Amino acid sequence: MDHDDYMKLALDLAKLADGQTSPNPLVGAVCVKNGQIIGTGTHMQAGTPHAEVHALNMAGLNADGADLYVTLEPCAHVGKTPACTEAILSSGIRRVFIASNDPNPAVNGKGIRLLRDAGIEVTTDLCKEEADFSNRAFFHFIQQQKPYVTLKAAATLDGRLATQNGNSKWITSESSRHDVHTLRHTHDAILVGVNTILHDNPFLTTRLPHGGKNPIRIILDRHLRTPETANVIQDQAAETIIFTLESDGMRAFSDFPLVQVESIPRHVDFLNEVLSRLANRGIMTLLVEGGSQVHTSFIQSRLANELYLYMAPKLVGNGPSLFMDQSRSSIAESESLRIIDVKQFGEDIRLHALFPIGGAS
Amino acid sequence: MDHDDYMKLALDLAKLADGQTSPNPLVGAVCVKNGQIIGTGTHMQAGTPHAEVHALNMAGLNADGADLYVTLEPCAHVGKTPACTEAILSSGIRRVFIASNDPNPAVNGKGIRLLRDAGIEVTTDLCKEEADFSNRAFFHFIQQQKPYVTLKAAATLDGRLATQNGNSKWITSESSRHDVHTLRHTHDAILVGVNTILHDNPFLTTRLPHGGKNPIRIILDRHLRTPETANVIQDQAAETIIFTLESDGMRAFSDFPLVQVESIPRHVDFLNEVLSRLANRGIMTLLVEGGSQVHTSFIQSRLANELYLYMAPKLVGNGPSLFMDQSRSSIAESESLRIIDVKQFGEDIRLHALFPIGGAS
Repeated sequence: MDHDDYMKLALDLAKLADGQTSPNPLVGAVCVKNGQIIGTGTHMQAGTPHAEVHALNMAGLNADGADLYVTLEPCAHVGKTPACTEAILSSGIRRVFIASNDPNPAVNGKGIRLLRDAGIEVTTDLCKEEADFSNRAFFHFIQQQKPYVTLKAAATLDGRLATQNGNSKWITSESSRHDVHTLRHTHDAILVGVNTILHDNPFLTTRLPHGGKNPIRIILDRHLRTPETANVIQDQAAETIIFTLESDGMRAFSDFPLVQVESIPRHVDFLNEVLSRLANRGIMTLLVEGGSQVHTSFIQSRLANELYLYMAPKLVGNGPSLFMDQSRSSIAESESLRIIDVKQFGEDIRLHALFPIGGAS
Repeated sequence: MDHDDYMKLALDLAKLADGQTSPNPLVGAVCVKNGQIIGTGTHMQAGTPHAEVHALNMAGLNADGADLYVTLEPCAHVGKTPACTEAILSSGIRRVFIASNDPNPAVNGKGIRLLRDAGIEVTTDLCKEEADFSNRAFFHFIQQQKPYVTLKAAATLDGRLATQNGNSKWITSESSRHDVHTLRHTHDAILVGVNTILHDNPFLTTRLPHGGKNPIRIILDRHLRTPETANVIQDQAAETIIFTLESDGMRAFSDFPLVQVESIPRHVDFLNEVLSRLANRGIMTLLVEGGSQVHTSFIQSRLANELYLYMAPKLVGNGPSLFMDQSRSSIAESESLRIIDVKQFGEDIRLHALFPIGGAS
């Protein structure tokens, strides 16, 4: 085991909490003394102890003179929990290895400086690339003050999200649709356009065999056309926020305690404003489930960070596609993504791709 | 090693000649005696000895009392080479194991019967599924008297083969384009529509670092719009056949010995007639490189057997797609394929999918 191995272990520990730390980052920590692992920790959920604290607690008095590997720069401030730098100093740790720096420009480097000033040997940037990537949503959220946006679409091999008259049931296999519920479970919020509500009347809840966390439901509805009879209004299964241009929107849906309507002034950029308001509510990760118009808006506005594209081995020959921009006349003007992963789901495949904007990638 | 292992070895031997046996099938053979492999053979090219003959030659007198594993029912007729059943009988082989039956209904079972009548123990259908699949092009060619048709297309993630004004240079990476040349090398003929000639003026030759076989070039050109200046006319690098509706087409391009024009009568189905004529010329495998209209015609006519779809991680927002059929109003009416393979080529991925029609799959 060398330094890299211990940090990779810390990264693996961090990932145990993938999708459940929001709005906090994923963090893992490993405490090592004389070549033996004496403590491990994962930050499991906002408001609970940080990874370093778990690892130091497990090590106990043995931490004195030990090394600590932590995937993110330890915090130097007292928040919901005490400062991690304090815990490190009082434990007697001799050396600290850090992967990612704190993305917040206001505190970046503060924890490292504090440890060094106290005489601790600090090594930074160990497995930095992998660590930064694993926290790309958190980094984006902190630096851009916007949720990290993941588009999800299901398409045929000829690129259609539905037929000409809007039929999309079901392009993809049950196995793909099950995977979508896993995505919902790991996102803070899910967003659709009002056309999806009117056409498909979805619940937008997480339905997994062993339960799951429902994301907050966001509806883009400029002219407040969402009917009271919609499933997302009636089911009271999760908070639902409707963003509209109508200034008297706030009075709507007053009988439904979990439904809120937010009016966006006409002089501001609608989509940017929606995302800023979601970030203010602490929503770090947003899953956009379309339709076509909504996806196109996010891509055109360069507000999309990732794409999960489920492709079913079908050809339907017409209907809307993922990107309805009519302005590109050459391939050079196309949007470029990077495919990072291809998986099989039943008869379908799922492409996972990154947009070149935002995130730490 | 059991019977399956020997047959799988024979199948591996057969595949050595993939793409170079046309219009013959892939065949491999293994001769085994007392648990030892004493002969192996591959049918390498039409007009050269069959796999069984190679394996028996290698075994020599030792073949007496041995077992023979062969991936396709041995032929019982004298063609360009002597009948394989004769060679088997005279070698003293005791048992014969066969994977695929001969697909030709006129001779199917004849070789097996002849061997059994001579007292040889014959086992059929060993690894049949894999063997049938490896010869799906040959089976289709023999049974349908049409070339086995593989569509090749390069698309963006939103399913576009080009921009609105026809720009398609270059959707895919160099690595994908290199793979297309490998496809050309392994096909007897390559087909495009005249629009591709007019718009892109391609050579449609095989350009691989270590050389390659140029396929015969087929142009669908109902109104004989191919100009004499086109690269496929001028370069004299391979035979070019232009199919047209114009009855006086035969006189065109008389200065170009490698160019032929075939007129199709207006009362017959154009595409079906083209394929029948190609089959009559011994063209077993046809690679269709589009454009969009040509692909759509093949799919609508249910004349496409396979699809190689190169997908580049780009979004271009408009332009033609793989399937321009405007008649499907529900997902249930879509064409269904089966994805059998996904590979990475540079930044792109390549889907290999089968249409449910034709072939032995």
